[in-house]
Amino acid sequence: MAEFISVHRRSFLAGGAGVLAAAACARTGVAVRAQEATKASKPLPAYVDWKNAEGLIVHSENTIETKREFIGTSGVTPNDLVYVRNNISPPDQSILANRDAWEVTFEGVANPRNVTLGELKTMGIETVAMVLQCSGNGRGFFEHKASGTPWRTGAAANVLWSGVPLRTVVDALGGASAGMKFLTSTGGETLPEGVDPKTVVVERSIPMDHALENAILAWEMNGEPISLAHGGPLRVITPGYYGVNNVKYVKRVALTAAETDASIQSTGYRIRPVGVEGAPDQPSMWEMKVKSWVTHPLADAKSGKIQIHGVAFGGFSALKGVEVSTDGGNTWKDAQLLGPDMGRYAWRPFVLSADLAPGTHAITSRATDSEGRVQEETTEPNHRGYDYSGWRRLAVEVTVA
Amino acid sequence: MAEFISVHRRSFLAGGAGVLAAAACARTGVAVRAQEATKASKPLPAYVDWKNAEGLIVHSENTIETKREFIGTSGVTPNDLVYVRNNISPPDQSILANRDAWEVTFEGVANPRNVTLGELKTMGIETVAMVLQCSGNGRGFFEHKASGTPWRTGAAANVLWSGVPLRTVVDALGGASAGMKFLTSTGGETLPEGVDPKTVVVERSIPMDHALENAILAWEMNGEPISLAHGGPLRVITPGYYGVNNVKYVKRVALTAAETDASIQSTGYRIRPVGVEGAPDQPSMWEMKVKSWVTHPLADAKSGKIQIHGVAFGGFSALKGVEVSTDGGNTWKDAQLLGPDMGRYAWRPFVLSADLAPGTHAITSRATDSEGRVQEETTEPNHRGYDYSGWRRLAVEVTVA
Repeated sequence: MAEFISVHRRSFLAGGAGVLAAAACARTGVAVRAQEATKASKPLPAYVDWKNAEGLIVHSENTIETKREFIGTSGVTPNDLVYVRNNISPPDQSILANRDAWEVTFEGVANPRNVTLGELKTMGIETVAMVLQCSGNGRGFFEHKASGTPWRTGAAANVLWSGVPLRTVVDALGGASAGMKFLTSTGGETLPEGVDPKTVVVERSIPMDHALENAILAWEMNGEPISLAHGGPLRVITPGYYGVNNVKYVKRVALTAAETDASIQSTGYRIRPVGVEGAPDQPSMWEMKVKSWVTHPLADAKSGKIQIHGVAFGGFSALKGVEVSTDGGNTWKDAQLLGPDMGRYAWRPFVLSADLAPGTHAITSRATDSEGRVQEETTEPNHRGYDYSGWRRLAVEVTVA
Repeated sequence: MAEFISVHRRSFLAGGAGVLAAAACARTGVAVRAQEATKASKPLPAYVDWKNAEGLIVHSENTIETKREFIGTSGVTPNDLVYVRNNISPPDQSILANRDAWEVTFEGVANPRNVTLGELKTMGIETVAMVLQCSGNGRGFFEHKASGTPWRTGAAANVLWSGVPLRTVVDALGGASAGMKFLTSTGGETLPEGVDPKTVVVERSIPMDHALENAILAWEMNGEPISLAHGGPLRVITPGYYGVNNVKYVKRVALTAAETDASIQSTGYRIRPVGVEGAPDQPSMWEMKVKSWVTHPLADAKSGKIQIHGVAFGGFSALKGVEVSTDGGNTWKDAQLLGPDMGRYAWRPFVLSADLAPGTHAITSRATDSEGRVQEETTEPNHRGYDYSGWRRLAVEVTVA
């Protein structure tokens, strides 16, 4: 049982306390859980004061997590519960005063030029449901001390985005220039003075072929103009790729021959062994992995008659199915997928009806994608603690009276 | 052209001004439109103060409409933009203090008893995307003076609901008693004193067979516990049926041999000729019709290069497709459906790319359902002004400079 972190310690961690403190914390029942939740809540920063404070954990001004139990079974994460992660602080709210006037520089195409959001809206529209997930989601489950926010499950959301397909814009600008291999997007944040811009600019490259097939330049999120916190007025949406690639306040969209040499790309967001420096030849945080986790039950129960539910996604490929175990992974049962299938890049809620005996149960889920890849049991430590996906530690321990 | 109501007069109407005033209002350009929008806005009532005031038209405390231009292309209507229509005022907010303790009386089953929401949550879960549409949506397009709120397009939304299937609960209670033909649901509103309860109670019956196949008892709406305004803690969701059948704060769920004799069922919500009294032998506002409308553009444009978009649904059947006309219905082009198909009872955004010549254009849309039924050109007047669906008056008139 030692490998399963109790829901109480888990909440303690999620509340922002350190790993060491949590490890020392004895399991003392539901009361502790509620207490910690209260203790940990910082007020929402002003730029996200419209969000659901009750359902969020404020780690810092720019890192705000969705509580695990606040992800429901509807399939779409409402905007006021979507996690927030900004690499540097967002621009001033005034950039939303005249959304249609926002200008984007397009490069690496036959006819490069600036295009306003108003003009982009006349070019075409597509809508895609997509899992938005921070590379560091699950960092709190690693045992090594990776720097960064100790996200548990809540740096992930399923969102409907609407905007113009990248391909449509590229075609309108005469097509890609010869030799281009990447989509390189630059955010519109104000960079701090006195530091080399390359070390702080949010500029990310992803493979061009995938981008031309899937990326959109989005102005709408779950039916509303994109808020400042989430990258409005315009955000690059890269289905199947980790959150960092979905550049906010996008000011420059370039097709490029090489990846950008900005630090966030060249050495940041690279998978490497613990203790190893980041380098461009290491795998970049691009394609997401198959993953799932239980969102209910998270608390002890009086009765074992229960609906176990959670969310599952294929990451880069479509979700095929998801199994649930109530005995720590010894045996598995197929769960039922809930609601509409929103496509390859979306997550899907699942449910398994169970009748658990009195005692303590380690409940977890294991997703499979359309390529037959199965969610891993454990995730190998990596220096920055990216995307813990292992079903063993994602398990929750629940005691039935 | 006289049959098309200009977008400016339309906004004037939508802002709550009377039909007669609107008819007298000359078309004086975009400035008037903005002015009227401002003039018409009443503050949001306290119980919905969390809603998006900018995107809503407050007709009264219990009738609040979504502005046509605030329906985007994402496919799901966010909770803070979903219209509100209560037949009588909602119960006190305190009913949400302990959601799981909410009790519902089940009748017309082998083992009738009270069941708490907490217990319902242990029985099963399903999620469905569904158009929620007030019977009176479109009343403002009729020329006869039907009493009631002059809704235009904004008493409709597409919502993801999550809860337990009615059939699961009925099965758990031993199945339907012999001879039952209707699902009869009773709302938990506090009834005004001194009047016959039957004349005010929100109690609706729908055919049992459809309900057992499709209805759920929902506690979640677009990923969040259902708010008071929308019927929390528990609402009956009847996919394919008009809004009134989706009983809020449901306190009693009965399988019955006959329809209820409550006024809202026996004489209310009946389709009948203008001037005729309501009676039980007239068609009830049950199955919704195939319908669509344009949501953009609604204002005059400098350029004719434009993405025409809107929403379309089959009503009781699945949507097959939607066409758009930019010449008042003389010619039609197939529009493209956007985003994920959320199933038979959902709406779907659509788009048609257009390049309009300078001048004035009457833009409208016409949906077709899976049974081959085509959205009607005009809707015959009915006494209460229910569900105007005719594409001719749903058209918008836009001038390209």
